[in-house]
Amino acid sequence: MSPHPQILAFDVFGTVVDWHGSIVRELAALAPAVDGPAFARAWRAGYQPAMQRVRSGERGWVALDTLHREILDGLLPRFGLQGLDEAARVQLNGVWHRLDPWPEVRAGLLRLRAGHTLCTLSNGNLGLLIDLARHGELPWHGVLSAEVFRAYKPDPRTYRGVAELFGLPPQAVMLVAAHEDDLAAARACGLQTAYIERPHEFGADAPKPVQGSPEDTLHARDLLQLADLLGA
Amino acid sequence: MSPHPQILAFDVFGTVVDWHGSIVRELAALAPAVDGPAFARAWRAGYQPAMQRVRSGERGWVALDTLHREILDGLLPRFGLQGLDEAARVQLNGVWHRLDPWPEVRAGLLRLRAGHTLCTLSNGNLGLLIDLARHGELPWHGVLSAEVFRAYKPDPRTYRGVAELFGLPPQAVMLVAAHEDDLAAARACGLQTAYIERPHEFGADAPKPVQGSPEDTLHARDLLQLADLLGA
Repeated sequence: MSPHPQILAFDVFGTVVDWHGSIVRELAALAPAVDGPAFARAWRAGYQPAMQRVRSGERGWVALDTLHREILDGLLPRFGLQGLDEAARVQLNGVWHRLDPWPEVRAGLLRLRAGHTLCTLSNGNLGLLIDLARHGELPWHGVLSAEVFRAYKPDPRTYRGVAELFGLPPQAVMLVAAHEDDLAAARACGLQTAYIERPHEFGADAPKPVQGSPEDTLHARDLLQLADLLGA
Repeated sequence: MSPHPQILAFDVFGTVVDWHGSIVRELAALAPAVDGPAFARAWRAGYQPAMQRVRSGERGWVALDTLHREILDGLLPRFGLQGLDEAARVQLNGVWHRLDPWPEVRAGLLRLRAGHTLCTLSNGNLGLLIDLARHGELPWHGVLSAEVFRAYKPDPRTYRGVAELFGLPPQAVMLVAAHEDDLAAARACGLQTAYIERPHEFGADAPKPVQGSPEDTLHARDLLQLADLLGA
């Protein structure tokens, strides 16, 4: 029997906010002729390789905002948008600070907030995460980021670091995420894990499997069901 | 004419939470015979010298929780409490995670939250600040700490660091604090400043002067008046 988790640490991109839908909506206003879903997926696909260069030590610490911008600059010509000027690129890159939460997120967090400490654990930089908290009115108690630990998930320093910040053992912390690789890395550090189904993370036209893993402590459709499972 | 600040960064101890009153109340339950106000002031008085050893480089980075505990251990014999066992010391040191906000704080922050990004900028460590946010139901968008910058205020890296995290110029950030030394250091880095009167920070029996400085951008009795002044 697992102990009741004191800290719920949330992955953000895909788990809490709908990056795909938000980028598609913003692009539809900026460049209606562009294939928004393909553009959003291509932008996101650059994310892991860009972080991997930092994780491997090939490159020093750099905030995710910078990686997003570099990926964007590489992407624009492929979608016929190489003519976007600097101001428009800065504006578009800022979409990652304006991502909308999934519809039930705020209600779920408000229920979970009474009995748990709620924080983020995201590879997004602190400024980005705080902007998202304001944009989506997300009631975190605190915002924790790879930037605090100067290491990107799935580096163990991030998962262990959350427990250490609170002076708690790893099993007092539960990572909440829609991605099994993230959850598996957290489990290896002794954290509890909750898998959240987000079948349309990559768009309604590209549903992803949501079976999770039997090793997860909990498996929930969304944050409201997570609140049910935690008795919140 | 100063621009409207986008980010309000709040000092916490004394400005947002009443450390003196909270420690006095907790000590009254634990050790009624002890002079609570004197104990609280002595504990807090150890704070600047302890941080100075870190600021000067004499000592590497160490979280404020650890400094609080070291000061406490040195203090207990002076108040006849050398018999407190380890568990009781850990519990008492945790009072810094359970400090109550001043009475108007939550209402003030809720008004300010609509038109500004609200964050902390405190020398308290992240775990402590997030615990305080939960304890006092403080509606921050994010919690920033000396721990993020690995430097204690008034190190310029802390004040400039807040603006840099958001990719904003220093004047887009306003430090809100009840201490002129903190505000003066922020001004020297280009931040706007708001002085908050907290005449009873050191106890109702030891009122402190609250004239602030004419160099502050704003001067307010409390966070409700700050909201008035900012049109929130």
